[in-house]
Amino acid sequence: VNSLLKLSAAQQRLGSPLCIGLDPEISRLPAGISRDPSGVFAFCREIVQATQHAACAYKANLAYFLALGVEGVGVLNDLLHGIPSQTLTILDAKFSDIDHSAARYAAFAFEQLKVDAVTLNPYVGTDSIRPFVAHTGKLSFVLCRTSNLEGNEFQVQKSAEAGHAREPLYEQVARQMVKLAGEFPHQLGLVVGATQPDELARVRSLAPDLPFLVPGVGAQGGELEPTLRFGTTNAGILPLINVGRAVLYASSGHDYAAAARAEVDRLLGQVRAWQQGAR
Amino acid sequence: VNSLLKLSAAQQRLGSPLCIGLDPEISRLPAGISRDPSGVFAFCREIVQATQHAACAYKANLAYFLALGVEGVGVLNDLLHGIPSQTLTILDAKFSDIDHSAARYAAFAFEQLKVDAVTLNPYVGTDSIRPFVAHTGKLSFVLCRTSNLEGNEFQVQKSAEAGHAREPLYEQVARQMVKLAGEFPHQLGLVVGATQPDELARVRSLAPDLPFLVPGVGAQGGELEPTLRFGTTNAGILPLINVGRAVLYASSGHDYAAAARAEVDRLLGQVRAWQQGAR
Repeated sequence: VNSLLKLSAAQQRLGSPLCIGLDPEISRLPAGISRDPSGVFAFCREIVQATQHAACAYKANLAYFLALGVEGVGVLNDLLHGIPSQTLTILDAKFSDIDHSAARYAAFAFEQLKVDAVTLNPYVGTDSIRPFVAHTGKLSFVLCRTSNLEGNEFQVQKSAEAGHAREPLYEQVARQMVKLAGEFPHQLGLVVGATQPDELARVRSLAPDLPFLVPGVGAQGGELEPTLRFGTTNAGILPLINVGRAVLYASSGHDYAAAARAEVDRLLGQVRAWQQGAR
Repeated sequence: VNSLLKLSAAQQRLGSPLCIGLDPEISRLPAGISRDPSGVFAFCREIVQATQHAACAYKANLAYFLALGVEGVGVLNDLLHGIPSQTLTILDAKFSDIDHSAARYAAFAFEQLKVDAVTLNPYVGTDSIRPFVAHTGKLSFVLCRTSNLEGNEFQVQKSAEAGHAREPLYEQVARQMVKLAGEFPHQLGLVVGATQPDELARVRSLAPDLPFLVPGVGAQGGELEPTLRFGTTNAGILPLINVGRAVLYASSGHDYAAAARAEVDRLLGQVRAWQQGAR
């Protein structure tokens, strides 16, 4: 199944751009859940069940599963296999390596875990991306602009090169990925933080066809409007709006699954209110 | 134990800057080894035994172990625990994430696997590095300049900023890591590819005290001289010269361990010849 078509179909079926970030920490597991890898699995499975009516995608961050120790990848694998097959699965690992090493990461993601999409870091260059897009039909979301404070250090460095003088690094990355998408259509996307609407707009203008994965939309939904406005592709693919801890830890009590469900419903309500206003 | 002191002691004890890259692929295992995770473990254990007289460090690339499936991290863990305690261990994963996620990767590396050092990717910014240097005494090697062809796309983009106009990105990264090393002395290093001697020299001049991890030294040893010349720190820490497949796959027959040993001895002979000439 082509990942982009799967994403598009899921968004249309559910009317939702929400991506649930599965970043479980043992120390934050709610009451009544065992504080070990099997507890993490049980917790995440309940979260998936409580949110799947509103999630076009689930994004599992590799860090939280590796930190569980030698059992972690097994937990991740079991969890991914329990996600409904019509929902996009993303392995968030920000891989950056070349040649054989990148090919091994791609085999891990696409052959072992069988996810639909990964996240990648572009610093090493396009040859670190190619082994992933070599897997036909799979999606690779490449870090473009991150919303953390010190993301400014390198990402907004303006170029002195003749071709695109004074273009910040993240725009160069967007441009390069558009070029690669010419070779591998429907296989590339960009990770663009939600905190700067003008940057979202700028990246969208450079990359009108690439789907966006957008972290950093706050619990208040303040950045929801520009994210939806500028995050949607020419073809109508909505931005994957990632929500993690606001959903996972909506309650620290026994009602955590109901609270998670209520939180995604609240967020989805905000999305729909904006969509109706924008029509 | 402080990782940098451990590295320095190992280099002096063995008279070697060689770092053996453990990047095992099932399809390349030599004759007589079972083609499964337990075969990978047995193979790597033999390689470690055959090379430990000449290895100041072992670098395990996470990609090759994840690609083994759910058992992979267990194989990696067992392998790392069999490496002599006086030898530096490096988890090569090029992590790049922030906040809680970076902290979970650091916990995986330094608490679960108990390695001495990691590799990191700087694109996300200094706040993706801090959770690693928060582990006192551990080393973080940050990607600065990679030797792959398309590494040029972003890493040599020259800045138009006023402060350091026309400085390529990799030099900005080096400068930023020197600044961070001011806060966290003896905890930062740089990954600098071996293929451009002038770039090695330039990074060394910007970062005289940071240890280098240097991939890309060819089987012919052609780049060995500039790597040793420019790779050594002010304090005399030799560059970690990484050799991987030339050692691992020195023979595809039953004599693979003896062939690996002969290959590291050959490389070490080249290092010593240069050292004697340079005296």
